[in-house]
Amino acid sequence: MIERIAILGTGLLGTSAGLALRAAGFRGTISGWNRSPEQAQIALSMSAIDSIATDPAQAALDAQLVLLATPVHAILDWMEQLSSVLGSEHLVTDVGSTKAQITAAGDRLFNRPGGAAFLPGHPMAGKERGGAALADATLFRGAVWLFTENPEWRRSERQTSLVKAWRHWVAAMGAKVIDLDSARHDELVAWVSHLPQFLATGLSALLEDEVGDAPELKDVGGRGLREMTRLGASPYSMWRDIAYTNSEAVQAALFALEQRLAHIRENLRTPELRDEFDKANRFRRDS
Amino acid sequence: MIERIAILGTGLLGTSAGLALRAAGFRGTISGWNRSPEQAQIALSMSAIDSIATDPAQAALDAQLVLLATPVHAILDWMEQLSSVLGSEHLVTDVGSTKAQITAAGDRLFNRPGGAAFLPGHPMAGKERGGAALADATLFRGAVWLFTENPEWRRSERQTSLVKAWRHWVAAMGAKVIDLDSARHDELVAWVSHLPQFLATGLSALLEDEVGDAPELKDVGGRGLREMTRLGASPYSMWRDIAYTNSEAVQAALFALEQRLAHIRENLRTPELRDEFDKANRFRRDS
Repeated sequence: MIERIAILGTGLLGTSAGLALRAAGFRGTISGWNRSPEQAQIALSMSAIDSIATDPAQAALDAQLVLLATPVHAILDWMEQLSSVLGSEHLVTDVGSTKAQITAAGDRLFNRPGGAAFLPGHPMAGKERGGAALADATLFRGAVWLFTENPEWRRSERQTSLVKAWRHWVAAMGAKVIDLDSARHDELVAWVSHLPQFLATGLSALLEDEVGDAPELKDVGGRGLREMTRLGASPYSMWRDIAYTNSEAVQAALFALEQRLAHIRENLRTPELRDEFDKANRFRRDS
Repeated sequence: MIERIAILGTGLLGTSAGLALRAAGFRGTISGWNRSPEQAQIALSMSAIDSIATDPAQAALDAQLVLLATPVHAILDWMEQLSSVLGSEHLVTDVGSTKAQITAAGDRLFNRPGGAAFLPGHPMAGKERGGAALADATLFRGAVWLFTENPEWRRSERQTSLVKAWRHWVAAMGAKVIDLDSARHDELVAWVSHLPQFLATGLSALLEDEVGDAPELKDVGGRGLREMTRLGASPYSMWRDIAYTNSEAVQAALFALEQRLAHIRENLRTPELRDEFDKANRFRRDS
């Protein structure tokens, strides 16, 4: 059903989507574009895309499905631009990490009679470093792929088929689809994704100050320390837009954790510490 | 040179040491004791020990080298008891997680002319769950094994040979030996081992409160969340003595992290956030 896909943003996620689609048996065409031409060239050389688009708006117009795989602010910019160009034969979807602003833009700019449709999506997959060169056909295998569309959105019959087909391909890439409300999405990912990231960044930055001058002592921490700081390698460029577009929920999560750590600090020698360990054990009980 | 070893405490570390010694070619006898007889039985059935000691003090007396592999407070109790029983032909060593109090007890009770020698040790290896059943002959491979002995301690010639021989076996088990001062040890492990643990416990306990009622949503967090909460499975029983015997350094580390997280929280939309990411990236630059 989907025969022509345009991927705008051939970084880690966009290029992995191209590879995963091919691995899942997608036989249509995939054109790709990236702000940095080298990234598009890498995606092409990996056969994640068939061709590099020189005019991304034209590539979107030529496709049936447009996958926006840039950081969140660039996704919002593309939505603005493409909404006036595309029509009732087009479906635009994305992989952006926060969904409230993007879904609101979907309300405002898309999903109206005669216009293009938009399906807000977010695969919970990635690596601590980005870039096409790290792309992987199996990146979405076993991952959750969240969608936050508004059930009231109106779509053409063709667009409805495209939505169904894209959901089929997402499942074929190995992901588990979950639908939820965009506000609930942003709150949830603040807890289970953004908080762990900012925590790993804070811990890594603190340890760089404290033991960074004695690199041999990092070995002392072993596997636990390596795991707790792995996400510390994530670059600011991957997280700036998330910090901007989900500030309130992330602030609330960070504040709650600060209070929790203060509670532990004040109870290192009281029975309260046992309660914290017991509760933490319950969180991991099924793992 | 070492022909008779007694392991007091056949949990994860004690049993793994028995297995690792055998794997490294140790041909002498290994007797084992555990407060809970089932753990000693498991160690025996895994051939980590040759026999179960019914009288641990007698087993220590019959051995040349005694390995104390219990939690820290029990190590301190054993040191108290054994110092009056053992003599100039004995070396006692341990695997306790904090070293200031244990090394001070080594000063007070051991390493005097005619008495038993003590060598404070700490392998930076473990698992988030304890017990003999999880023991592993390769647990110490690639791990750092810290020693915090006082260079002024006096030992008999036989004890000096036992210390050399034990250091040889530690290296043969695959560990990398580092010597450091006991106060510096406790400060260092507060940063690279205890802080990550209490952080994982706090994060896991917080998430149990926030999303524990929706276990399917844990999947949303993916690998990052799994890694950041893995140590949340560690039981209180493994950490109580560490919290008690290294409170000051752990409190300082937790407080510094709370301040760091507050700084990130207040700067989600300012260029300061970039500085935190850059510093965190530097900590991970060689990883």
